Amino acid sequence: MLLFTLLFAAIAVAQNSSIQTPTSIVFDSGVPTDAPVPGLYNGTWRPQVHFSPPRGFMNDPNGCFRDDNGTWHLYYQYNPTATVAGNQHWGHATSQDLYTWENQQIAIYAMEDSQIFSGSAVIDTNNTSGFFPNQTNGVVAIYTLNTQYSQVQEIAYSYDGGFTFIKYVNNPVLALDPASTQFRDPKVIRYGNSWAMVVSYAQDFVIGIFTSPDFKNWTHASNFSHHGLLGLQYECPNLVQMPVEGGDAMWVLVISINPGAPQGGSITQYFPGDFNGTHFTPVDGAARIADFGKDNYAGQFFYGLPETEEQVFIAWASNWEYCQQVPTGETEGWRSSMSVPRRTHLANVTRMGWDMISAPYDLSPIYSSPLATNSSLGNGSILLDYSTLPSRAIYFQCNVSNIPNNTYSQGTLNFTFYSSTTHESVSGGFYFGGDNPFWISRQKVLGFGKTNPFFTDKFSVGNPINTNGTFTLEGVMDRSILEVFLDGGRNSGTMTFFPLGELDTIELRAGELNDNVTVSVAVWGLKSTWADQASADGVVYGNVTSGGNSTQTMRRDMKAHT
Amino acid sequence: MLLFTLLFAAIAVAQNSSIQTPTSIVFDSGVPTDAPVPGLYNGTWRPQVHFSPPRGFMNDPNGCFRDDNGTWHLYYQYNPTATVAGNQHWGHATSQDLYTWENQQIAIYAMEDSQIFSGSAVIDTNNTSGFFPNQTNGVVAIYTLNTQYSQVQEIAYSYDGGFTFIKYVNNPVLALDPASTQFRDPKVIRYGNSWAMVVSYAQDFVIGIFTSPDFKNWTHASNFSHHGLLGLQYECPNLVQMPVEGGDAMWVLVISINPGAPQGGSITQYFPGDFNGTHFTPVDGAARIADFGKDNYAGQFFYGLPETEEQVFIAWASNWEYCQQVPTGETEGWRSSMSVPRRTHLANVTRMGWDMISAPYDLSPIYSSPLATNSSLGNGSILLDYSTLPSRAIYFQCNVSNIPNNTYSQGTLNFTFYSSTTHESVSGGFYFGGDNPFWISRQKVLGFGKTNPFFTDKFSVGNPINTNGTFTLEGVMDRSILEVFLDGGRNSGTMTFFPLGELDTIELRAGELNDNVTVSVAVWGLKSTWADQASADGVVYGNVTSGGNSTQTMRRDMKAHT
Repeated sequence: MLLFTLLFAAIAVAQNSSIQTPTSIVFDSGVPTDAPVPGLYNGTWRPQVHFSPPRGFMNDPNGCFRDDNGTWHLYYQYNPTATVAGNQHWGHATSQDLYTWENQQIAIYAMEDSQIFSGSAVIDTNNTSGFFPNQTNGVVAIYTLNTQYSQVQEIAYSYDGGFTFIKYVNNPVLALDPASTQFRDPKVIRYGNSWAMVVSYAQDFVIGIFTSPDFKNWTHASNFSHHGLLGLQYECPNLVQMPVEGGDAMWVLVISINPGAPQGGSITQYFPGDFNGTHFTPVDGAARIADFGKDNYAGQFFYGLPETEEQVFIAWASNWEYCQQVPTGETEGWRSSMSVPRRTHLANVTRMGWDMISAPYDLSPIYSSPLATNSSLGNGSILLDYSTLPSRAIYFQCNVSNIPNNTYSQGTLNFTFYSSTTHESVSGGFYFGGDNPFWISRQKVLGFGKTNPFFTDKFSVGNPINTNGTFTLEGVMDRSILEVFLDGGRNSGTMTFFPLGELDTIELRAGELNDNVTVSVAVWGLKSTWADQASADGVVYGNVTSGGNSTQTMRRDMKAHT
Repeated sequence: MLLFTLLFAAIAVAQNSSIQTPTSIVFDSGVPTDAPVPGLYNGTWRPQVHFSPPRGFMNDPNGCFRDDNGTWHLYYQYNPTATVAGNQHWGHATSQDLYTWENQQIAIYAMEDSQIFSGSAVIDTNNTSGFFPNQTNGVVAIYTLNTQYSQVQEIAYSYDGGFTFIKYVNNPVLALDPASTQFRDPKVIRYGNSWAMVVSYAQDFVIGIFTSPDFKNWTHASNFSHHGLLGLQYECPNLVQMPVEGGDAMWVLVISINPGAPQGGSITQYFPGDFNGTHFTPVDGAARIADFGKDNYAGQFFYGLPETEEQVFIAWASNWEYCQQVPTGETEGWRSSMSVPRRTHLANVTRMGWDMISAPYDLSPIYSSPLATNSSLGNGSILLDYSTLPSRAIYFQCNVSNIPNNTYSQGTLNFTFYSSTTHESVSGGFYFGGDNPFWISRQKVLGFGKTNPFFTDKFSVGNPINTNGTFTLEGVMDRSILEVFLDGGRNSGTMTFFPLGELDTIELRAGELNDNVTVSVAVWGLKSTWADQASADGVVYGNVTSGGNSTQTMRRDMKAHT
């Protein structure tokens, strides 16, 4: 079946064929090393407030950190030469607000026989690594070098704040004996006077914890094994400390699994608990899922935020079951976006117990215009055509109050995004009675989902009504991706889809609610974060003016040491 | 929305309106007490080799046991007066082969202000209870009495081998102080010289373990809490000892969760481990899911099988998200069937680790005719019209050998069931390369799934190829339910659907397999286990000749003691 045929050959990107590539020195791969890869961000399915790669294939977020100037750095698993996985580099983008991303030149390059798999980055303020005798903003990245024979952990360092990297001469810094092909995704944090790494022994269902004084010498400290959903691999662990509602900061261990998620394919789970620098102890034996959709995987927390601040998490918004087949590849030359960045903390919520609350990071920088508000919707509806909104990216929020005790509560609150041309729709809704299920559906989108046997149509979650009788629904709709957030992030769901017609109309409708229940709704347009970056030819060239000299340094180093 | 409207009023069943109800003494509810409820089993969607209630609504299997004569007793949560939940009785059926079920009179009756919720049954061979001074085949049932104010555990005993029950005069035998409305589903087994009960503190995510010498006095022994997926409730625990491939028998704790399954709604998970009579200790912290579909919940093991025998499990084949809306209610007057009975054991399988192997119980008693066999399908297909098979129930099996190492394996093996009238289809398939995903889909069935937001269309699981290069697919298709089994039960998936046209054609197709891979396929027709029981008017009246006297006894007792 065509469906399962992996196309590893470079794919000619029709829309980009007329792009003038900036003058550049290239490897054999054809990837520029002194400038970002240019890309067209105006395709029908291109998210306008989410990060997606300029062209080619993207998967896991990597090396996320916030620097001392407040700039957010996002790296990502990147194949710049095809719209399927393979030839993995670390792409790079930076942002001041986590929504408006500037593409940077590729940060770490794949070589002919080895790929740069996932990993993380830190700021080595105190020069523990010895790489930075003259600066406090040196960046160390650690990643998995993947070859046919093994996966080992390597490091690279950056003098220029994370734009260009030099591979360490004595790599690898961590390898198994005998060699393993299933040892990957190191995520490093600072704990006391030490570095602490979580890394996955993927098919053993073990997260190893290692410590190091200098990022070069790593000592095995403990294993966290066979917890929660196993699927067929543990991947992309994260260990992070975050605020707790009404309590002291706690730790969370996040593990992605793929394949083998209950929904099929890829999923993210997490474990609240305690970390003492060498051992992680979960609060209980429960398996908690980060997102009830099927498009939220391999998420990573940004390094550099104090534990008193909500931590910031960004995930890859796709699923290995179909990420290499979604139709953006053929028609727009890119595949996969990230989720919206999410601010997270822990709470011990009614009935659910420990829960990672995950809400969109501050959207205010990208609000464009309020499109509709109604503070007394009651059992009514609003219907809004937003086809003239250039971004076709929408934020909506519904706040419901005075919901009676669950025994008596009833009624529904539904949303639908329509295409006025094809009558396709993406929808969701909440039922105020019974088990309080909330659902989202991509069933009524034509195209990809009708032929792909893994593109599940509907997702749902039980969301008990708050004891104070309120319910909140928020959503970010961005052309081919929807993320919903219930009760400020108590539950969240991510779902992608590829309608044949543009979604351009939103309906919000409440019905059969109890008397006295109040509903207020608001819909905002969001700015296109990419349109302002485009040149006259429509292409986003990214940050072509910086990093040139360092790139030369890096390239020489890579040739010498790898 | 109509979808969410629970219809608790008794529903007139069109097909049954002309049925002559046997002479019977009835409660106010209108339910006969001296004969089974009659039912029509020839509807388009009626399973022919699965148990479903004669009419009305069914959910959890209850009180499952095998008696000393080898008769299997299945009780079930039963509302005989409507096709939605409520008014819960214990329905009853018996079988010699686990496929051909004879409907018995209702075993335990709901009263006006209280319902008989789920529970279990045992044979009290040694008269530990004191109820059976003169027999070794006395049966004790334990169930949750559900009222508006509390859930407590009650017992009832049967002198006639489980056909009629007398409620214990000093009920309840176990109640919480203060009273709880979330304490239910006792499952009792024999351990040494004691009875051991697992019971759910549902919304605390705790399984309590109690022990008793006499079934009347229960002592709390331990709690198993916050393990695996929590959802929003723990329900229907089971504790059972079963054989292990290449090792000594081990214990398994099974917990159903609803709502809040990752797929939405209801799901079953299990924990292999050890039980010492008072405490259960899982082998690890993993959450293992019993079935990758969305229609396998509240399963129960039959009491009375030695741990050296494969244990037998039967589940309710539906989901609380939509069980009260599926269209069989309006058109055929029944809702929900059980799964096929499954024989289970444990194995420590390659890569997956501990796994409960779950395969159909011996189907040989219900084979009717081989419809097609091909021992060298190769990259070919067979297409078979089975519209003349009265049952329209099918068993199919595909055995694949000589699959090369996964790096090189490729190709697909797919099945499709079509309706020749509407061109609807139910399908599934396996991919021999990549992550070895197996999928099933009810997407191309018209009707219910197109309008119900919880009736998810597709399910999948990763199923690594055996190290010996083989793959086996088995399936039981029975009009409105499909169950698939991979590699002898390493993975299983249950899915219901309600096509507008009858499924009457099967296609099995292999394609793009490696050279030298061999594929043999076989399709058998299955007997209708209900047709032979029908009277001339088409109605199955069940076992109307037995139990009359005991029923009178029971009824007087119920009136006296409840």
